[in-house]
Amino acid sequence: MTDIGFGLIGTGYMGKRHAVALKAVGTVFNTRLRPVCELLCTTTASGAAQKAAELGFNRSTADWRDLIKDQRVRAIIIASPQFTHSQIARAALAAGKPVLCEKPLGASLDDARAMVAAAASARVANMIGFNYVRTPATQLAHEIIGNGEIGKIVHVRAEHTEDFYADPEAPVSWRTRDAASGNLGDLAPHIINAVLRLAGPIERLVADVQTVHLSRPGATGREPVTNDDQVDFICRFKNRAMGSISVSRVATGKKMGYAYEITGTDGALRFDGEDQNSLWFYERRSQTGRQGFKRMLTGPDHPDYRAFCLGPGHGTGYGDQIIIEVRDFLKAIETGEPVYPTFHDGLEVSRVIAAAFRSTEQRRWVDLAEIN
Amino acid sequence: MTDIGFGLIGTGYMGKRHAVALKAVGTVFNTRLRPVCELLCTTTASGAAQKAAELGFNRSTADWRDLIKDQRVRAIIIASPQFTHSQIARAALAAGKPVLCEKPLGASLDDARAMVAAAASARVANMIGFNYVRTPATQLAHEIIGNGEIGKIVHVRAEHTEDFYADPEAPVSWRTRDAASGNLGDLAPHIINAVLRLAGPIERLVADVQTVHLSRPGATGREPVTNDDQVDFICRFKNRAMGSISVSRVATGKKMGYAYEITGTDGALRFDGEDQNSLWFYERRSQTGRQGFKRMLTGPDHPDYRAFCLGPGHGTGYGDQIIIEVRDFLKAIETGEPVYPTFHDGLEVSRVIAAAFRSTEQRRWVDLAEIN
Amino acid sequence: MTDIGFGLIGTGYMGKRHAVALKAVGTVFNTRLRPVCELLCTTTASGAAQKAAELGFNRSTADWRDLIKDQRVRAIIIASPQFTHSQIARAALAAGKPVLCEKPLGASLDDARAMVAAAASARVANMIGFNYVRTPATQLAHEIIGNGEIGKIVHVRAEHTEDFYADPEAPVSWRTRDAASGNLGDLAPHIINAVLRLAGPIERLVADVQTVHLSRPGATGREPVTNDDQVDFICRFKNRAMGSISVSRVATGKKMGYAYEITGTDGALRFDGEDQNSLWFYERRSQTGRQGFKRMLTGPDHPDYRAFCLGPGHGTGYGDQIIIEVRDFLKAIETGEPVYPTFHDGLEVSRVIAAAFRSTEQRRWVDLAEIN
Amino acid sequence: MTDIGFGLIGTGYMGKRHAVALKAVGTVFNTRLRPVCELLCTTTASGAAQKAAELGFNRSTADWRDLIKDQRVRAIIIASPQFTHSQIARAALAAGKPVLCEKPLGASLDDARAMVAAAASARVANMIGFNYVRTPATQLAHEIIGNGEIGKIVHVRAEHTEDFYADPEAPVSWRTRDAASGNLGDLAPHIINAVLRLAGPIERLVADVQTVHLSRPGATGREPVTNDDQVDFICRFKNRAMGSISVSRVATGKKMGYAYEITGTDGALRFDGEDQNSLWFYERRSQTGRQGFKRMLTGPDHPDYRAFCLGPGHGTGYGDQIIIEVRDFLKAIETGEPVYPTFHDGLEVSRVIAAAFRSTEQRRWVDLAEIN
Repeated sequence: MTDIGFGLIGTGYMGKRHAVALKAVGTVFNTRLRPVCELLCTTTASGAAQKAAELGFNRSTADWRDLIKDQRVRAIIIASPQFTHSQIARAALAAGKPVLCEKPLGASLDDARAMVAAAASARVANMIGFNYVRTPATQLAHEIIGNGEIGKIVHVRAEHTEDFYADPEAPVSWRTRDAASGNLGDLAPHIINAVLRLAGPIERLVADVQTVHLSRPGATGREPVTNDDQVDFICRFKNRAMGSISVSRVATGKKMGYAYEITGTDGALRFDGEDQNSLWFYERRSQTGRQGFKRMLTGPDHPDYRAFCLGPGHGTGYGDQIIIEVRDFLKAIETGEPVYPTFHDGLEVSRVIAAAFRSTEQRRWVDLAEIN
Repeated sequence: MTDIGFGLIGTGYMGKRHAVALKAVGTVFNTRLRPVCELLCTTTASGAAQKAAELGFNRSTADWRDLIKDQRVRAIIIASPQFTHSQIARAALAAGKPVLCEKPLGASLDDARAMVAAAASARVANMIGFNYVRTPATQLAHEIIGNGEIGKIVHVRAEHTEDFYADPEAPVSWRTRDAASGNLGDLAPHIINAVLRLAGPIERLVADVQTVHLSRPGATGREPVTNDDQVDFICRFKNRAMGSISVSRVATGKKMGYAYEITGTDGALRFDGEDQNSLWFYERRSQTGRQGFKRMLTGPDHPDYRAFCLGPGHGTGYGDQIIIEVRDFLKAIETGEPVYPTFHDGLEVSRVIAAAFRSTEQRRWVDLAEIN
Repeated sequence: MTDIGFGLIGTGYMGKRHAVALKAVGTVFNTRLRPVCELLCTTTASGAAQKAAELGFNRSTADWRDLIKDQRVRAIIIASPQFTHSQIARAALAAGKPVLCEKPLGASLDDARAMVAAAASARVANMIGFNYVRTPATQLAHEIIGNGEIGKIVHVRAEHTEDFYADPEAPVSWRTRDAASGNLGDLAPHIINAVLRLAGPIERLVADVQTVHLSRPGATGREPVTNDDQVDFICRFKNRAMGSISVSRVATGKKMGYAYEITGTDGALRFDGEDQNSLWFYERRSQTGRQGFKRMLTGPDHPDYRAFCLGPGHGTGYGDQIIIEVRDFLKAIETGEPVYPTFHDGLEVSRVIAAAFRSTEQRRWVDLAEIN
Repeated sequence: MTDIGFGLIGTGYMGKRHAVALKAVGTVFNTRLRPVCELLCTTTASGAAQKAAELGFNRSTADWRDLIKDQRVRAIIIASPQFTHSQIARAALAAGKPVLCEKPLGASLDDARAMVAAAASARVANMIGFNYVRTPATQLAHEIIGNGEIGKIVHVRAEHTEDFYADPEAPVSWRTRDAASGNLGDLAPHIINAVLRLAGPIERLVADVQTVHLSRPGATGREPVTNDDQVDFICRFKNRAMGSISVSRVATGKKMGYAYEITGTDGALRFDGEDQNSLWFYERRSQTGRQGFKRMLTGPDHPDYRAFCLGPGHGTGYGDQIIIEVRDFLKAIETGEPVYPTFHDGLEVSRVIAAAFRSTEQRRWVDLAEIN
């Protein structure tokens, strides 16, 4: 085993989850590379020092450039706000350091393109933080589809619905200001990524994006909300399958409605993030009179579960997804080979989002080929 | 109580269900009008005679014109193929006889319009057979929305998914030939009706209609399938809510996927026809830390349930929906007032279907105002 | 087809359901014998006349002896209070008339034994109204077990839980007075019958019976409750399987908790009356990594469903169970052969109940062999 | 923050989970005491050295006595086989070192008593590893009951069902040999602990314990199974509530059937470990016609969830339970106050198990007062 120093930028919600994952991953997966929590960066020196103590990092800094330059930092995780992703990631790659960047890839399609270009030049590991596709259940779905067990895909229904902005009196914040931080920019990437992972590239789509609550309480009275609350789109995949995707942050009652139903000619799969330890599977060719959707609880026979627990059905959680993600990042660092999902995969998601915005503005179907 | 002679046209699946409902409705609901199964009509005299014996009708005929003229027939149920609906219904109305017509209203938008015009002149009860909105659970959903218990509707997701044509080797039939008998023409009306009932009129939509299996086994080898297998559309309602609707007859594993999720600013409702005796209800304003979707089992406190059973959760079934429908028809006959859903409601559904076909052909958003 | 005149005694909840079933059964099942609602009996002449009009009976009487003697009455359904069952049923059998008697078989074990003896002498159809075992799902469970698809049964868990007496302020009634009308006497028979049907005879049991709310509001202030609210028992079946059964009328939140889980060496089944249109099935020998409980929606491939509907998952309801029951009774009348469940099956249930009472009183295991 | 050196004895399934928890707990909960993985012990020196590298411990030993004596080891976790628990725990306590011991407390009731006595003398933290009561959902259940939100408890149904020995061809192992390692001795403690936690002490019980598969494949052909496969018992709690508990390792299809239903006079709760991120809650006094069991997804408003994730419904997993457990142990060490569940709580569970064995042997009700 070899220690490898990590630098982490960002100490919010996701920063903390990455810190925990760095601590746990070696013991969970018996990895050859063992992360050391070396350097933590956030916007002020005192804040960084305090967070370093809390999260268990050796040192801290308020300057991400120092973090990138640091000799003991040999891999970088970016969990700072999305408008910072591109600049930091490109600098890190230019310094030859592997980067795991939180989603969305950048604050704009141009950002995302620049990051992919930088990754292509750098030839070190680059990865985007789509943690949800790492649940054992979704990995299993990918395996079942890949095996042809549901036949040819004919339809995909997917959603990511939460309700953290369902209350019209929830105040404005960074989340209500820029397109990249809105519902389509910030919440949708996860499920779009899942759909592309499971059903392949989208050819064209038509979308409808809406701001439901046009203003919210702010520091100085009601302030306008300048990004979207919900989006629906329908699409065709390159493989001719049809798709219907909904994403909302005002879906009253939904907490983790990251869900999909994939229908094939020989079977179907259903997953719901509100019950992340099961995958529902229907086999068309099973015995007449004995057909039904089967609730398969994930267990040691399924991808990556065994490292967490030997008992099936005992369950993995949100944090475990991040541990799997960091394991993947270590693998990419170690082998020098790209490990899914790379920046390129993040760009593909950004292109779908851009197409959805354009489709709404122009009220028409948009071919993904238009979005280059 | 007063007996009222019924004529029934059609002895297939739905014809039988109507016959059972005619037998049961008086006892279930203690109606003032008591149906007498007077005259049954199907295409051959011998077939009609045999079916009359089986289904318990007094007499039979092979000519629907005779049925309409029959003195003892004072109300008519049309459960024959859809291309016959318009002609028969108009003749019955012209003869001053109340008509309950199975969905879809007619085989085309022109048919539907003609039927509505005939109903307007006739001033007798006219009704369309949207049985699913009669489940106590969906009646309850309507009541909850009407009370404002979920606030203002912001999103509707709905589907009607079944898999009776999921097998690519299922043979051609009348169901695979005309647009009116395809997935969008024949399966979609139920859920479109529910959506209009619960969320109000649609303003515009964009649709994608597809035939998944282009040919199927026929009498002389493989024959082309000339109508659709699945449709997705997204829409805006007049009340500004967004909608996403999917209908499929090739949805492997789905048996009765007539389902909806209605999201409002103050709550949400979920229904799934595969569990028709419950309605899921979320109340945003309920106590922090005690929120969740509640599975409400229908019972005697909910619309129309009490007539079937005094115990909650004991459950009503498919046939009971038809009994409620016939009760509604009797009420319309008795009062002379229109009872929902009338031919006009059927026409509104037909207009949405026509818009979806046009949207697909022209690959664009279609305003419902275009469909007159 | 042949008409057969029915006499019905009792016009309460169950009486009404039987009346509906008599009306519908011929059309649903295309039976050779076609019930005619001939004579209705309840306690007063005017009440009987009014109910006959409501429920659609030709004539009425206030004297069950007249009903039994009536020449046009050729089959009898007893849906009057349980203390009347034995006397009426024995008189009917003595008159050579087939009897379908509501559960429980009688108000006591002696009643039940006398009824079985009378049935043995009479040699006409006798049947007890265990409607719940008639759901297509439970018939399917019986078929799966019979086929050996779950191997040898090793464990049975079952319950019938409702909450109609959960409110401590619900008033006293006939239901709170006699052992036969209490939770163990009146609610438990259904699930005990299901357990015996699915897993075979019980060898011994140990029970705990309890009155939770010792008094309730009555006409003159609080009155004592003199029968039980809940019972738990564990048992051994003759086939060596273990069992655990709970029955309660104070199970807050449960509406139709008639539920069982049958575990075998090769598989398992689960049913819940609050979702009566599905049966959950687990097959131990299915492929590693693809195992799970499968929710099988009942459909035309399952027992008795097809008569109600050609579409799977469209669902049957409580009333449909009674229609199946009356079909079975017609079959027993027609063939002269006993059709399950007969009075004998009712007696076996009564013996289990008697054993549970004795076990509680004597606080010990009781062998069923003791209860003769 | 202060570092605290930990010694861990045992490197199997649970040993690994404790190692991960020691790594993660400080970052997750921002604890003042920060565990250092100091010394790992297993049966051979080379095995211990290898496992120390894998699990990330500083040093290793093959002698647990050395571990206890080690100056840098200031807290001890025992995750070795149950027959070793008593001796090691007593030695550690005698050395004045806090102990977290895996369940069951010891291999016998005498073991358990000796451990409690040692803990009483030692006056350092002692804790037993009942991890499942640490799920946010079960902590929430405890809170709801404590608040009186379901009124007075009248009934408890609980089970812990798994199927790791459902296959009759699964070979013999340590799990099939001693009472303490069998189903009742080793699997049952978790759910018995939950029941005692949620409903209070048991007064008396009657049990039935069974070995379903009497022999299994071994090294030399079939060998006898000398402990039990399943147990059912019914009981009375001191608070007069009735209970019914089932535990099985041959429950075909069950993976994590750690489940309970607690019925009170004003409400009810349901939990199922196969869906550990939700708790179902019914409130009797909620509005008529709007009643139902509510699926509450755990989130930051519920105990201990917020440390893992800010989004509700995102889910915690099995490993997170152990992290909470280690946090509790740190709290006990820090404060010097007992933190639930202590060795005493483990002993109460052992007494119930002893009563169940005695009840089965003597085929009678056993008062817990008999088990001292």
